Formats: sequence, structure tokens, C-alpha cells
Amino acid sequence: MDRLVDEATVDLLGVLAYGELTAFERLASDARLAPTIADKVALASMAAAEFGHYRQLHDHLVAVGADPEKAMAPFVDALDEFHDSTDPSDWFEGLIKAYVGDGLAADFFREVSAFVTDEPTRELILEVLADTGQADFAVARVREATAADAALSGRLALWARRLVGEALLQAQRVAVERDALIELVVGGSGDLAGLARLLTRLTDNHTKRMKTLGLQS
Amino acid sequence: MDRLVDEATVDLLGVLAYGELTAFERLASDARLAPTIADKVALASMAAAEFGHYRQLHDHLVAVGADPEKAMAPFVDALDEFHDSTDPSDWFEGLIKAYVGDGLAADFFREVSAFVTDEPTRELILEVLADTGQADFAVARVREATAADAALSGRLALWARRLVGEALLQAQRVAVERDALIELVVGGSGDLAGLARLLTRLTDNHTKRMKTLGLQS
Repeated sequence: MDRLVDEATVDLLGVLAYGELTAFERLASDARLAPTIADKVALASMAAAEFGHYRQLHDHLVAVGADPEKAMAPFVDALDEFHDSTDPSDWFEGLIKAYVGDGLAADFFREVSAFVTDEPTRELILEVLADTGQADFAVARVREATAADAALSGRLALWARRLVGEALLQAQRVAVERDALIELVVGGSGDLAGLARLLTRLTDNHTKRMKTLGLQS
Repeated sequence: MDRLVDEATVDLLGVLAYGELTAFERLASDARLAPTIADKVALASMAAAEFGHYRQLHDHLVAVGADPEKAMAPFVDALDEFHDSTDPSDWFEGLIKAYVGDGLAADFFREVSAFVTDEPTRELILEVLADTGQADFAVARVREATAADAALSGRLALWARRLVGEALLQAQRVAVERDALIELVVGGSGDLAGLARLLTRLTDNHTKRMKTLGLQS
């Protein structure tokens, strides 16, 4: 079967699919760090939702005539390294990662989805990016804990910086290797000025999230 | 609301629910060790199925008037310690744990479910114990790898022994603390001779599983 969408769209679906698969795996694994059964269940539910998204992306890749494994393969190293280099050492680092990391990724993919010409693909991307509840949950737990603990606030603010740094590092790595994808992003933004504005929007949203958490960005 | 089932039944549902929740978390986490994306997806699918089972047990506990968290609480330490003491160090140890560990647990709960008087509870237990596909998958992968590697066979055989040892240790610990549950098991077996026969059946099935894997029991 011929592919029904262009290379950049397959790339985008591939990186999202592997992103959901690893998000599932890491969230489920971070559920170990939960201090109560209720917290564990909350994180496990989000993880299960991510796996549902993975399945949808997988099925959509098949539907457009692409091989899901081949589509994900170019992004395995970058995503695995991101997660290995940001393995949370406690429950709160895990929550920040779920909120800040997923928030940043969702913002980026939402922006890029606007440049995708295939309508069903665009709709699916927006659907799987919908918040699975981790935002409210993470914010409530982190604010509760940091309210009375300035040292924790400081540590988590640094942790969030590291998350963003590692994400950018891996994004750059992918950009160097995936021409079609980078062309979609740059071409879609209009020009380099458009790309700069996109990056500014991502940064602004990140700053807002940090403020919501009550942490310095 | 009054509880609609006896204490032993709540205990049984509680230990099963927490067992599924931790199985989910550990399988998902062991998916990190997978050598290929396809293997990762296979393990992640099984994990997601376990979480579905957890949800069913949780909802059933609510339906019979029990508090799910309270029902699970007495079994948290034993199950957490089992998993902490049997954290797989590689992909194959993870597969053996999924197959041998879940097989042993499923056999035990299937036997005990026969003693439960509440019909919907008994049906649900049998339903959530149905194999999620890990048996065939694990057997195929392990046989493939050990066929040409005697050292791996030896190491995995020892690993399986350790799994059973740790499971028995934690089961004993639970038995000492949960009178109603132990009474259900011993009472249901008829007498101590009946209990001994139940243990023999569990051992026989374990030996069969090891043979299927091509490993010494």
C-alpha cells in the first residue's frame, strides 16, 4: 500500500507515537514513587490514557499506509535519552516532569499540527494532546508540598530547568537528522521570524506553567 | 452503606486489586528493558490490560460497599516488598517474572475463588485472572534466547526459584496478619490435608510452567 501522507506527517506521527509509548512507561514507572495508593492510582490512570493514545496513533499510521515501527525508529534514541537523563529521583520530580514536560511537548505538537495538511491526522493529534488530567493533579500536589518548604521549591525549580534543557538538546538532535520534519516546522512557521515567534510562545507558556506551580522559571 | 460481602471476600478483592495495580506498574516499568519496539509494545499492552483489571476490582469493591483503599492497605507492604526484592535486572528476568509470577498468583487466586460464596465476586475474579497474553509471549521469547545459551538457562532457572521463594515469604507474612483470609483458604480447602493438596497442585503447575520454558525447576 502506498503512503497516503507525506514524509513529514509520518515523522510527526512517529515521534508522537513513541512519545506516548515512553510517556506511558515512565509515568507508570514513576507511580512507584507515589506516597499514597490514591496518588499511585492517579498517575497510573494517566499512564493508561497515554497508552490509549499510543494505540490510536499506531492505528492511524497503519491506516495511512505507514509502518508504525519504522515511523517511530528515528526517534527512539532521542526520546530514550531524554527520559534516561531525566529519571525523577522522587515523587515531586516525577510530577513536575509530567506537568512541565508534557505541557511543553503538547504545546509544540499543537503548534506544528496546524501545518499538517491531512485533516484526519490533524484532528487525531489534537485529540491525543488533550490533557489527561495530570495538569490539575500535579499543580495541586506540588503547591501543597512547596507552600511550607522553600528548599523543595528551589530544588524543583532547578529540576524544571534541567527538563527543558534536556528536551531542547534532544529536539535539536532530531532536527539535525529529520529534514522533512524540520521543513514542516520552519515552512509552516512562514520563515525564521515565524519560528522565533513560535519559540517565544512555547517559552511564555512554560513560564506560565511554572508560575501556576508557584515555582521560579 | 453496609458491606454486602464478608471480610475475607473484601480481603481477597483487596489483595487482588493491589496485585493488579502493582503488576501494571512493574510490567510497564519493565517495558524499558525491551530490546525492540515490538517487545516494548507487547509488554505495555499487557500492563494496560492489568490496569483495566484493577479498575474492575476497584469498582466491584465500591459496588459491594467496601472502601477500595482500605481493602488494599493491608497488602501494600507485602506486595511492594515482593516487587522490590524481585526487580528484574534484564529483559529475560522481567519475562520470567511476568510468566512464572503471574502464573503462580493466578493459580492461587483461581483455587481460592472457588471458596467465595458471592457469585458476582467469583465471576469477576475468574475474569481478571484470564491470561493477558503474557504466557505465550514470554515462553516464545525465553525459549528462543535460551536455546543457544546454557548460561542464561541456568541463571533464569535460579531467578525463577528466587521469585517463588520471595512470593512464599510474602504470602506467609500476609497469612499471619489476615485471619479471615487464611480461614477462607484453610476452611475452603476442607482441612489441612486439603490445603496440602492445594499447595501440591500449585507446585505441579509451577513445574509445568518451568518445563514449558525449557528451564529446570
